[in-house]
Amino acid sequence: MATDNLTALLYKPNDLRLVQTPIPEISDDEVLLRMDCVGICGSDVHYWQKGQCGHFVLEEPMIMGHEASGVVAKIGSKVKNLTVGDRVAIEPGVPCRYCEFCKTGRYHLCPDMIFCATPPVHGNLVRYYKHAADFCFKLPDHVTMEEGALLEPLAVGIHACKRGGVSAGHVVLVLGAGPIGLLTMLTAKAFGAHKVLIIDILQSRLDFAKSLGADYTLLIGKDSNEAELVRKIHEILEGHPDVSFDASGAQATVRLALLATKSGGVAVLVGMGAPEQTVPLAGALSREVDIRGIFRYVNDYPTALAMVASGKINVKPLVTHHFSIEESLEAYEVARQGAGIKVMIHVQPRDTNNPQKF
Amino acid sequence: MATDNLTALLYKPNDLRLVQTPIPEISDDEVLLRMDCVGICGSDVHYWQKGQCGHFVLEEPMIMGHEASGVVAKIGSKVKNLTVGDRVAIEPGVPCRYCEFCKTGRYHLCPDMIFCATPPVHGNLVRYYKHAADFCFKLPDHVTMEEGALLEPLAVGIHACKRGGVSAGHVVLVLGAGPIGLLTMLTAKAFGAHKVLIIDILQSRLDFAKSLGADYTLLIGKDSNEAELVRKIHEILEGHPDVSFDASGAQATVRLALLATKSGGVAVLVGMGAPEQTVPLAGALSREVDIRGIFRYVNDYPTALAMVASGKINVKPLVTHHFSIEESLEAYEVARQGAGIKVMIHVQPRDTNNPQKF
Amino acid sequence: MATDNLTALLYKPNDLRLVQTPIPEISDDEVLLRMDCVGICGSDVHYWQKGQCGHFVLEEPMIMGHEASGVVAKIGSKVKNLTVGDRVAIEPGVPCRYCEFCKTGRYHLCPDMIFCATPPVHGNLVRYYKHAADFCFKLPDHVTMEEGALLEPLAVGIHACKRGGVSAGHVVLVLGAGPIGLLTMLTAKAFGAHKVLIIDILQSRLDFAKSLGADYTLLIGKDSNEAELVRKIHEILEGHPDVSFDASGAQATVRLALLATKSGGVAVLVGMGAPEQTVPLAGALSREVDIRGIFRYVNDYPTALAMVASGKINVKPLVTHHFSIEESLEAYEVARQGAGIKVMIHVQPRDTNNPQKF
Amino acid sequence: MATDNLTALLYKPNDLRLVQTPIPEISDDEVLLRMDCVGICGSDVHYWQKGQCGHFVLEEPMIMGHEASGVVAKIGSKVKNLTVGDRVAIEPGVPCRYCEFCKTGRYHLCPDMIFCATPPVHGNLVRYYKHAADFCFKLPDHVTMEEGALLEPLAVGIHACKRGGVSAGHVVLVLGAGPIGLLTMLTAKAFGAHKVLIIDILQSRLDFAKSLGADYTLLIGKDSNEAELVRKIHEILEGHPDVSFDASGAQATVRLALLATKSGGVAVLVGMGAPEQTVPLAGALSREVDIRGIFRYVNDYPTALAMVASGKINVKPLVTHHFSIEESLEAYEVARQGAGIKVMIHVQPRDTNNPQKF
Repeated sequence: MATDNLTALLYKPNDLRLVQTPIPEISDDEVLLRMDCVGICGSDVHYWQKGQCGHFVLEEPMIMGHEASGVVAKIGSKVKNLTVGDRVAIEPGVPCRYCEFCKTGRYHLCPDMIFCATPPVHGNLVRYYKHAADFCFKLPDHVTMEEGALLEPLAVGIHACKRGGVSAGHVVLVLGAGPIGLLTMLTAKAFGAHKVLIIDILQSRLDFAKSLGADYTLLIGKDSNEAELVRKIHEILEGHPDVSFDASGAQATVRLALLATKSGGVAVLVGMGAPEQTVPLAGALSREVDIRGIFRYVNDYPTALAMVASGKINVKPLVTHHFSIEESLEAYEVARQGAGIKVMIHVQPRDTNNPQKF
Repeated sequence: MATDNLTALLYKPNDLRLVQTPIPEISDDEVLLRMDCVGICGSDVHYWQKGQCGHFVLEEPMIMGHEASGVVAKIGSKVKNLTVGDRVAIEPGVPCRYCEFCKTGRYHLCPDMIFCATPPVHGNLVRYYKHAADFCFKLPDHVTMEEGALLEPLAVGIHACKRGGVSAGHVVLVLGAGPIGLLTMLTAKAFGAHKVLIIDILQSRLDFAKSLGADYTLLIGKDSNEAELVRKIHEILEGHPDVSFDASGAQATVRLALLATKSGGVAVLVGMGAPEQTVPLAGALSREVDIRGIFRYVNDYPTALAMVASGKINVKPLVTHHFSIEESLEAYEVARQGAGIKVMIHVQPRDTNNPQKF
Repeated sequence: MATDNLTALLYKPNDLRLVQTPIPEISDDEVLLRMDCVGICGSDVHYWQKGQCGHFVLEEPMIMGHEASGVVAKIGSKVKNLTVGDRVAIEPGVPCRYCEFCKTGRYHLCPDMIFCATPPVHGNLVRYYKHAADFCFKLPDHVTMEEGALLEPLAVGIHACKRGGVSAGHVVLVLGAGPIGLLTMLTAKAFGAHKVLIIDILQSRLDFAKSLGADYTLLIGKDSNEAELVRKIHEILEGHPDVSFDASGAQATVRLALLATKSGGVAVLVGMGAPEQTVPLAGALSREVDIRGIFRYVNDYPTALAMVASGKINVKPLVTHHFSIEESLEAYEVARQGAGIKVMIHVQPRDTNNPQKF
Repeated sequence: MATDNLTALLYKPNDLRLVQTPIPEISDDEVLLRMDCVGICGSDVHYWQKGQCGHFVLEEPMIMGHEASGVVAKIGSKVKNLTVGDRVAIEPGVPCRYCEFCKTGRYHLCPDMIFCATPPVHGNLVRYYKHAADFCFKLPDHVTMEEGALLEPLAVGIHACKRGGVSAGHVVLVLGAGPIGLLTMLTAKAFGAHKVLIIDILQSRLDFAKSLGADYTLLIGKDSNEAELVRKIHEILEGHPDVSFDASGAQATVRLALLATKSGGVAVLVGMGAPEQTVPLAGALSREVDIRGIFRYVNDYPTALAMVASGKINVKPLVTHHFSIEESLEAYEVARQGAGIKVMIHVQPRDTNNPQKF
């Protein structure tokens, strides 16, 4: 058995190191994975820079990484769904399986959830990592390891669209053209949305959104007039959006979502933003615009994989930068600067495990 | 045919007068009603005092009244569901029947809705009033005319519970023990809620709520500590409420609804409150607490009538004051002072049309 | 004003004639349409051949036609959504607007529905036809009049998919590759279905289905073994279908839908078939496979139009035969023989009203 | 520790014996229960008489019993929700926790479900029995052990009403007044149903149903005319039932459910009946009457307990016979004869564990 287990460990804020850690032992219902691709997410950068994200605080050294794929190296005695050599996408959270939330199909709300790289739980930016077998999803040959890693942010977009009730013929507004906004847009279109308008404060992001298939884009400034923007949104869409997604978290865009959405529609707030926000609640609620948040995803990996495998969603263009695990610090630095869309770290040489190359 | 058509007309703010108006002519799909009971609602008092409510503004004299029942005096040529002499509850809003909202079963959101005593539409605090026949609901003999009038605020409680998805076994929190809070509580219990806690700033209202069947009550002060209140709510309910209703509109109680509701639950904001509110949105939304408002009711009158007719909801105790139409000004003054719960105006001598007396 | 009003009138079974009828007068909420395209549906052929379809029986001469598009020639005084010259698709049923079904958004179940070419109501295979303005949907310039007429059968497929709850990532089975089966397949894919298997007894239909985008096809014989077919369906789909559609009405395929669908899934029976059927109900129901039928469509025209206008569904290849209204008898004969997929009758010379040609 | 572990073991059809078996060892997530009450269900009698029920076949000796309550005698190391001495109701099925059904909140459809007294799994008509701690529900002091055991059949009624979407104001039809029909009726009323009509072929059962609160009853004969019965049902209910439940499984009542239900309503088939049935599918489906089956229950125990604990459903009157575990054979004989409604076996002297006596 291999002994090299190079690991990207966050010691404390601003102190990310490459070290060796022991290769983990697996339980009956787990698999040991030889990691392949691990993407960098905004929350990773937060932990690295600030030592916290939301109410989760780094108190001990933590292995980074949660947008990941790997290859099965060993299986537990009770594992039936996988075999050694299977290429898998890893759903990074494993719930308790016993509580009310787990039993009612909302395991993402399980208070005892173990979630990769969310303190105090270790992540998977490491050579060898163990995981519950049922939260590993086998990839068909034509789906690449990078696509497998990208299922994680895609699952967020899918969960957002399911929560928003996006369906065929819907008119959709997406506020924010970062990775989550873009994936939400792609998902909305794959769910049959008729028209999608995406809004951002950077033209470069909007151009990228357009290249991915956005029907309409709108550049807004920090000082744009709110009522005027709402009017413009309705004008572009020739109507009011059935569902709006705020993928930015800024109070300004949360407000736009509430104001612009059609009566009886849904405003999904994907970006979390400040704990306290001043918003025109009464106006939205008296038009029965429902306000819904999302927390990660639940039962969305199978849909994400089906969408990618069938070609209905193409996530490949989102990866703009590639690094090896040995270059992790450099990768994090690029992610921090926000230069591209998605930075991917390769724990094994790129394409090693792809029967069809990326 | 009668010629007396005594009418409670609001000329302008603070100028409510009793005058004579012409008895209306009916269309093919309408009925002429000899009015019986007309309750006073908070919005009526608003129009009287301020000349406006929400974004509706009084610009011309308007007949008051929208919580009402009457007896059919004449029917249009196409009316099939009613006959002369039928005692009916009046659903006060009539939609356009042509728009997308009307066709999809959400006619309450119809932008061309004609709604009693909402400017510029006249209400029914008058001897004779005409209405669309299909928005009049025939009362069984054992349901009184007062109960018929009370279906209007009850329909709000029913709509709120349907929007909140209240179902059997649910734990429910109601913030505010005014008429709408009380009717929401009664409805929640009739929908099978297991435990209902109702909160107010007046002990007298809580005592009344208790007498109506509230499982738990909690008196709060203007300066109660928020976190402490949330803890207390959870303690009393031995858990988190599945559904919370804010029936007050105050920012403080809206905040409580967001903070106290169980992860994955629903916070229904029934009271509208200030246009802008500062609220802990992110915390609620990241626990997937859905935030929903309500606008009046839709298809809720049949349910309201069924609940009252079958004895599952007893609305009678809510009427604390009675006046004749000739005493309308006095009635409005009592309602303004907030002395009781519901003030009822009788356009005909009380119990005239009740086979079983109130 | 024109006086020619050539009309395809079904006098009695097997007696379809071209005659002149008066150009109709419109009401306030109606438009007069200069008809353009009228497709032939299976039910039309039934009326022509048998004088009945289901429990609807031809008792007096009836104008044929209900899959249609036209151009607005005149508008009623209250019509706001259309103007003279607008090219529209016609949703052929107009409900009473007053009953419980109309108010709750299920107007297709309205017992007083007036539906084109369903006895005793006239259809629109005629030069001039009047219709409720709100059931006419304006076509964008790039959508052809033929596409407008095809929205009618497409609305059936959309209603079927909505009733089946088809959503992204679903595995879908369609039994029967006639027009409705094909449109259901196209809709399922536009709703994000991952894999669609379509089954028929004619290889030619399956080849056509494949050319339209079916993921898998399966030819079955009249004497195929039931258990073996179920096994084969599961093998091809690498799993059980989440949703199955029977678009044939034959007892054999209804049985397959019940047997093959995944536990907890939905079997939608689109084809109606014999009044009495012998089926393995207990097996399906004890696996909580829900069984749902469909009746026409409701609020599905806007979705159908959005799907066609945005290019998500291409209905054009379905039209295999074209005739002028003067050739109506010949057109019906071709439809009766079942030679192609969809036979289209042009009341005006083809492409007259298409800014972008078909 | 006790050593007596008297056990009701079904050796083979018609061979039920009282024997001693070893007291089981518990795992980390299990509790050992000192059994108290165990009811007899129709399926128990089936296994005893025929050695099978549905597709489950007795192949080895099996301990009987699955409608049960007990007292916690020992807890596993990871158990947090219970403590020794807790009085609990036992949800008898424990799913795998890993499959798609378990994760999506439909664990009752888990193919690897372990379910008490369903071959080859042992039941709990025994002194000591071990069970997954999270499928044991702690009873409040005022809920008796018998009520705890009755939560099992009540959960079936609750699942049926949830599947049928019964809600406030609904008109409901229940076909069959056995234990499940009665519990479905009680549940429907607790969910707010306005009128419930229950139908049976025995007047004695209808009288009992009436005493429990049925609004209407109807006695039918084996040779009643189907169309006439449907007419009578509509007459009694002054309308069509929104939801119908067949709790008999007979083809005749399944047919009535399909024929009598309101257009757009739901027919829930609770009784399973013959594998093949000849039914008027097309008529029901073309009126969009949805047909749904049920399989046991899922996440319904908390609701069942809440309904009993809050007094909204009174299950006590259903128990008509009491026996000790030593009298198990006699108890089964009484159940077989169908003399009463529910036969209860007491593993400990009745009321031993009830702070408030039954």
